[in-house]
Amino acid sequence: MTNARQIADNYIATWNATDAASRNALLASHWANEPTYHDPLMTAANAEELVGLVGAVQDRFPDFRFKLTNTPDGHGDFVRFSWGLGPDDAEPVIEGSDVIMLENTRIKHVVGFLDRVPATA
Amino acid sequence: MTNARQIADNYIATWNATDAASRNALLASHWANEPTYHDPLMTAANAEELVGLVGAVQDRFPDFRFKLTNTPDGHGDFVRFSWGLGPDDAEPVIEGSDVIMLENTRIKHVVGFLDRVPATA
Repeated sequence: MTNARQIADNYIATWNATDAASRNALLASHWANEPTYHDPLMTAANAEELVGLVGAVQDRFPDFRFKLTNTPDGHGDFVRFSWGLGPDDAEPVIEGSDVIMLENTRIKHVVGFLDRVPATA
Repeated sequence: MTNARQIADNYIATWNATDAASRNALLASHWANEPTYHDPLMTAANAEELVGLVGAVQDRFPDFRFKLTNTPDGHGDFVRFSWGLGPDDAEPVIEGSDVIMLENTRIKHVVGFLDRVPATA
Protein backbone atom coordinates (compact mmCIF):
# COMPACT_ATOMS: atom_id res chain seq x y z
CA MET A 1 0.00 0.00 0.00
CA THR A 2 1.26 3.39 -1.00
CA ASN A 3 1.99 5.87 1.76
CA ALA A 4 -0.63 8.15 0.30
CA ARG A 5 -0.56 10.78 3.02
CA GLN A 6 3.20 11.25 2.91
CA ILE A 7 3.24 11.51 -0.85
CA ALA A 8 0.41 14.05 -0.84
CA ASP A 9 2.21 16.06 1.86
CA ASN A 10 5.40 16.11 -0.22
CA TYR A 11 3.42 17.21 -3.24
CA ILE A 12 1.63 20.01 -1.40
CA ALA A 13 4.95 21.15 0.12
CA THR A 14 6.35 21.51 -3.39
CA TRP A 15 3.52 23.82 -4.42
CA ASN A 16 3.93 25.83 -1.21
CA ALA A 17 7.68 26.36 -1.60
CA THR A 18 8.21 30.12 -1.77
CA ASP A 19 11.70 30.22 -3.26
CA ALA A 20 13.46 28.48 -6.10
CA ALA A 21 16.01 26.73 -3.89
CA SER A 22 13.27 25.10 -1.83
CA ARG A 23 11.36 24.07 -4.93
CA ASN A 24 14.42 22.47 -6.46
CA ALA A 25 15.26 20.67 -3.21
CA LEU A 26 11.72 19.25 -2.98
CA LEU A 27 11.84 18.19 -6.62
CA ALA A 28 15.14 16.42 -6.01
CA SER A 29 13.83 14.66 -2.90
CA HIS A 30 10.35 13.59 -3.92
CA TRP A 31 9.85 13.73 -7.68
CA ALA A 32 10.97 11.37 -10.44
CA ASN A 33 12.99 12.49 -13.41
CA GLU A 34 11.01 14.08 -16.25
CA PRO A 35 7.81 14.59 -14.29
CA THR A 36 4.66 15.75 -16.04
CA TYR A 37 1.75 17.83 -14.82
CA HIS A 38 -1.64 18.48 -16.45
CA ASP A 39 -4.59 20.41 -15.10
CA PRO A 40 -7.24 22.45 -16.92
CA LEU A 41 -5.11 25.62 -16.77
CA MET A 42 -1.47 24.56 -16.75
CA THR A 43 0.82 21.91 -18.22
CA ALA A 44 4.42 20.96 -17.46
CA ALA A 45 6.41 18.44 -19.47
CA ASN A 46 9.52 18.33 -17.27
CA ALA A 47 11.00 19.50 -13.96
CA GLU A 48 12.01 22.92 -15.24
CA GLU A 49 8.50 23.67 -16.47
CA LEU A 50 7.02 22.35 -13.24
CA VAL A 51 9.23 24.60 -11.10
CA GLY A 52 8.14 27.45 -13.36
CA LEU A 53 4.46 26.71 -12.75
CA VAL A 54 4.95 26.63 -8.99
CA GLY A 55 6.77 29.95 -9.16
CA ALA A 56 4.01 31.47 -11.29
CA VAL A 57 1.32 30.40 -8.82
CA GLN A 58 3.39 31.73 -5.90
CA ASP A 59 3.84 35.04 -7.73
CA ARG A 60 0.14 35.33 -8.48
CA PHE A 61 -1.10 34.28 -5.02
CA PRO A 62 1.68 35.26 -2.60
CA ASP A 63 -0.61 35.16 0.46
CA PHE A 64 -2.26 31.85 -0.38
CA ARG A 65 -1.20 28.39 0.62
CA PHE A 66 -2.19 24.94 -0.57
CA LYS A 67 -3.59 22.48 1.96
CA LEU A 68 -5.17 19.05 1.83
CA THR A 69 -8.96 19.04 2.21
CA ASN A 70 -9.48 15.29 2.54
CA THR A 71 -7.60 12.15 3.52
CA PRO A 72 -5.39 10.96 0.67
CA ASP A 73 -5.82 7.37 -0.42
CA GLY A 74 -4.01 5.21 -2.89
CA HIS A 75 -3.16 1.80 -4.28
CA GLY A 76 -0.08 0.55 -6.05
CA ASP A 77 1.56 3.49 -7.79
CA PHE A 78 -1.49 5.78 -7.56
CA VAL A 79 -2.54 8.38 -5.00
CA ARG A 80 -5.52 10.73 -4.98
CA PHE A 81 -6.49 13.63 -2.75
CA SER A 82 -8.29 16.96 -2.79
CA TRP A 83 -6.74 20.32 -1.98
CA GLY A 84 -7.64 23.93 -1.40
CA LEU A 85 -5.73 27.13 -2.15
CA GLY A 86 -6.42 30.23 -0.09
CA PRO A 87 -5.32 32.43 2.79
CA ASP A 88 -4.29 30.80 6.06
CA ASP A 89 -7.19 30.34 8.46
CA ALA A 90 -9.83 30.93 5.79
CA GLU A 91 -11.93 28.91 3.39
CA PRO A 92 -10.03 27.96 0.21
CA VAL A 93 -10.69 30.20 -2.79
CA ILE A 94 -9.82 27.50 -5.30
CA GLU A 95 -10.30 23.76 -4.81
CA GLY A 96 -9.24 20.75 -6.83
CA SER A 97 -8.54 17.03 -6.87
CA ASP A 98 -5.34 15.45 -8.14
CA VAL A 99 -4.18 11.97 -9.05
CA ILE A 100 -0.47 11.20 -8.74
CA MET A 101 1.24 8.35 -10.57
CA LEU A 102 4.46 7.18 -8.93
CA GLU A 103 7.66 5.79 -10.41
CA ASN A 104 9.83 3.97 -7.87
CA THR A 105 7.92 5.74 -5.05
CA ARG A 106 8.58 9.18 -6.59
CA ILE A 107 6.02 11.57 -8.07
CA LYS A 108 6.14 11.05 -11.84
CA HIS A 109 2.84 12.15 -13.40
CA VAL A 110 0.13 14.40 -11.98
CA VAL A 111 -3.35 14.87 -13.42
CA GLY A 112 -5.36 17.61 -11.74
CA PHE A 113 -8.99 18.69 -11.91
CA LEU A 114 -10.68 21.80 -10.52
CA ASP A 115 -13.60 21.40 -8.14
CA ARG A 116 -14.22 25.07 -7.35
CA VAL A 117 -12.98 28.16 -9.17
CA PRO A 118 -14.07 31.70 -8.23
CA ALA A 119 -16.13 33.48 -10.86
CA THR A 120 -13.63 36.35 -10.85
CA ALA A 121 -10.47 34.24 -11.13
CA MET B 1 -12.03 20.27 -24.76
CA THR B 2 -12.50 16.55 -24.42
CA ASN B 3 -16.00 15.20 -24.94
CA ALA B 4 -15.94 13.98 -21.38
CA ARG B 5 -19.53 12.78 -21.21
CA GLN B 6 -19.31 10.68 -24.37
CA ILE B 7 -16.07 9.07 -23.28
CA ALA B 8 -17.46 8.27 -19.84
CA ASP B 9 -20.60 6.81 -21.44
CA ASN B 10 -18.50 4.58 -23.69
CA TYR B 11 -16.47 3.47 -20.72
CA ILE B 12 -19.52 2.65 -18.59
CA ALA B 13 -21.09 0.79 -21.55
CA THR B 14 -17.99 -1.42 -21.71
CA TRP B 15 -18.36 -2.40 -18.06
CA ASN B 16 -22.08 -3.06 -18.56
CA ALA B 17 -21.64 -5.32 -21.61
CA THR B 18 -23.11 -8.68 -20.65
CA ASP B 19 -21.52 -10.87 -23.31
CA ALA B 20 -18.03 -11.28 -24.73
CA ALA B 21 -18.99 -10.19 -28.25
CA SER B 22 -20.35 -6.87 -26.97
CA ARG B 23 -17.30 -6.31 -24.81
CA ASN B 24 -14.94 -6.93 -27.70
CA ALA B 25 -16.95 -4.64 -29.98
CA LEU B 26 -16.86 -1.82 -27.42
CA LEU B 27 -13.14 -2.33 -26.91
CA ALA B 28 -12.59 -2.13 -30.66
CA SER B 29 -14.68 1.02 -31.00
CA HIS B 30 -13.62 3.08 -28.01
CA TRP B 31 -10.39 1.83 -26.49
CA ALA B 32 -6.78 2.25 -27.59
CA ASN B 33 -4.44 -0.67 -28.17
CA GLU B 34 -2.80 -2.11 -25.06
CA PRO B 35 -5.07 -0.38 -22.56
CA THR B 36 -4.30 -0.55 -18.85
CA TYR B 37 -6.59 -0.51 -15.84
CA HIS B 38 -5.74 -0.12 -12.15
CA ASP B 39 -8.08 0.10 -9.18
CA PRO B 40 -7.60 -1.04 -5.57
CA LEU B 41 -8.97 -4.53 -6.34
CA MET B 42 -8.17 -5.27 -9.99
CA THR B 43 -5.47 -4.67 -12.59
CA ALA B 44 -5.40 -5.22 -16.35
CA ALA B 45 -2.30 -4.79 -18.50
CA ASN B 46 -3.93 -5.28 -21.91
CA ALA B 47 -7.26 -5.69 -23.70
CA GLU B 48 -7.56 -9.40 -23.00
CA GLU B 49 -7.12 -8.90 -19.27
CA LEU B 50 -9.54 -5.98 -19.30
CA VAL B 51 -12.25 -8.02 -21.03
CA GLY B 52 -11.62 -10.70 -18.42
CA LEU B 53 -12.16 -8.23 -15.57
CA VAL B 54 -15.43 -7.01 -17.07
CA GLY B 55 -16.60 -10.59 -17.41
CA ALA B 56 -15.63 -11.38 -13.82
CA VAL B 57 -17.58 -8.40 -12.50
CA GLN B 58 -20.59 -9.34 -14.64
CA ASP B 59 -20.41 -12.92 -13.33
CA ARG B 60 -20.21 -11.79 -9.73
CA PHE B 61 -22.91 -9.10 -9.95
CA PRO B 62 -25.27 -10.27 -12.74
CA ASP B 63 -28.15 -8.05 -11.57
CA PHE B 64 -26.07 -4.91 -11.07
CA ARG B 65 -25.31 -2.19 -13.56
CA PHE B 66 -22.80 0.65 -13.63
CA LYS B 67 -24.09 4.19 -13.96
CA LEU B 68 -22.57 7.64 -13.78
CA THR B 69 -23.24 9.49 -10.52
CA ASN B 70 -21.92 12.91 -11.48
CA THR B 71 -21.22 14.98 -14.59
CA PRO B 72 -17.95 13.94 -16.22
CA ASP B 73 -15.42 16.66 -16.83
CA GLY B 74 -12.10 16.72 -18.58
CA HIS B 75 -9.26 18.63 -20.18
CA GLY B 76 -6.85 17.62 -22.89
CA ASP B 77 -6.47 13.85 -22.81
CA PHE B 78 -7.98 13.44 -19.33
CA VAL B 79 -11.51 12.69 -18.15
CA ARG B 80 -12.84 12.12 -14.63
CA PHE B 81 -16.21 11.00 -13.32
CA SER B 82 -17.81 9.07 -10.50
CA TRP B 83 -19.88 5.92 -10.87
CA GLY B 84 -22.10 3.58 -8.91
CA LEU B 85 -22.70 -0.14 -9.24
CA GLY B 86 -25.98 -1.61 -8.05
CA PRO B 87 -29.42 -2.85 -9.01
CA ASP B 88 -31.50 -0.79 -11.42
CA ASP B 89 -33.69 1.76 -9.67
CA ALA B 90 -31.82 1.48 -6.39
CA GLU B 91 -28.97 3.17 -4.60
CA PRO B 92 -25.55 1.95 -5.76
CA VAL B 93 -23.95 -0.66 -3.54
CA ILE B 94 -20.42 0.24 -4.61
CA GLU B 95 -19.23 3.67 -5.69
CA GLY B 96 -15.99 4.92 -7.18
CA SER B 97 -14.23 7.63 -9.14
CA ASP B 98 -12.10 7.03 -12.22
CA VAL B 99 -9.64 9.03 -14.28
CA ILE B 100 -9.24 8.11 -17.94
CA MET B 101 -6.19 9.01 -20.01
CA LEU B 102 -6.83 9.11 -23.75
CA GLU B 103 -4.62 8.29 -26.70
CA ASN B 104 -5.86 9.72 -29.99
CA THR B 105 -9.33 10.16 -28.41
CA ARG B 106 -9.43 6.51 -27.32
CA ILE B 107 -9.42 5.16 -23.76
CA LYS B 108 -5.83 4.16 -23.02
CA HIS B 109 -5.23 4.16 -19.26
CA VAL B 110 -7.74 4.05 -16.41
CA VAL B 111 -6.99 4.69 -12.75
CA GLY B 112 -9.88 3.96 -10.43
CA PHE B 113 -10.53 4.63 -6.76
CA LEU B 114 -13.31 3.35 -4.51
CA ASP B 115 -15.51 5.85 -2.69
CA ARG B 116 -17.91 3.42 -1.01
CA VAL B 117 -17.57 -0.31 -0.51
CA PRO B 118 -20.07 -2.38 1.49
CA ALA B 119 -18.70 -3.84 4.69
CA THR B 120 -19.77 -7.30 3.54
CA ALA B 121 -18.35 -7.10 0.02
